[in-house]
Amino acid sequence: MTPTDPLSLLAAARARGWRIATAESCTGGLVAVALTDIPGSSDVFDRGFVTYSNAAKIEMLGVLAATLAAHGAVSEPVAREMAEGARRQSGADLAVSITGIAGPGGSEFKPEGRVCFGLATPAGTATETLDFGPQGRAQVRSLARDHALGLLARALS
Amino acid sequence: MTPTDPLSLLAAARARGWRIATAESCTGGLVAVALTDIPGSSDVFDRGFVTYSNAAKIEMLGVLAATLAAHGAVSEPVAREMAEGARRQSGADLAVSITGIAGPGGSEFKPEGRVCFGLATPAGTATETLDFGPQGRAQVRSLARDHALGLLARALS
Repeated sequence: MTPTDPLSLLAAARARGWRIATAESCTGGLVAVALTDIPGSSDVFDRGFVTYSNAAKIEMLGVLAATLAAHGAVSEPVAREMAEGARRQSGADLAVSITGIAGPGGSEFKPEGRVCFGLATPAGTATETLDFGPQGRAQVRSLARDHALGLLARALS
Repeated sequence: MTPTDPLSLLAAARARGWRIATAESCTGGLVAVALTDIPGSSDVFDRGFVTYSNAAKIEMLGVLAATLAAHGAVSEPVAREMAEGARRQSGADLAVSITGIAGPGGSEFKPEGRVCFGLATPAGTATETLDFGPQGRAQVRSLARDHALGLLARALS
């Protein structure tokens, strides 16, 4: 699949008058960086939450401690609450979330390379899980960033 | 000057038991990405605020609308409130902020390449302004990231 071009993504959002927010854990801000690489992105990109710790997910995005305890940070229920929290807190039309295990090593009995995504839109929220496998931290992070950009692009197409 | 190695920076913070938060505008998350590139960064890096819009600066970090109106987003008073807000909101020991004009073009009657930084520590907050000049968006963003990492490293040395 061709990686999503952030320039086209921003143009599609601009054409709709939609604003975008991001909620990132394992990617650590890579999606926000990709969007803000583009001059003029400020009319579309509102803010990004880099919620690395569980406390940050709870305090910045309103993720429930019970959801974290029941499913772990790398789970679709947490990805859902992250995306919905980012959309609610920012007032943006569209929010994408990423929470995963970039590695090295797995955790919470989950494999290295597993990444959960959430996409919150005016029509509702979708989640999904991808297993990128143990490709190395940098590669998993890049692939997760590209997938998140693709989710935003599809929501705008 | 040698760019700060994020690995050494994280080790220095870990040795002190300090946690770090970031508040980024023009760099769009680059400092958070640099820190989270390192495996095991989660014991030091707590969260990052990518406050691209003025609303985000106000809502996420408690920057005062009056400060934005009086000085503009790219100013040391705003950098100070961003760093202090990130430290307060996160409970981190150390917070760095970046707000600047990556370009192309200047704004608010300020030149392209101007970047203001804030560093909030247990001992107080410092701010400074650097004029990187019209080197292009990517270069200004990278230089601002490296400078912010250097500020964190100096606070830990």
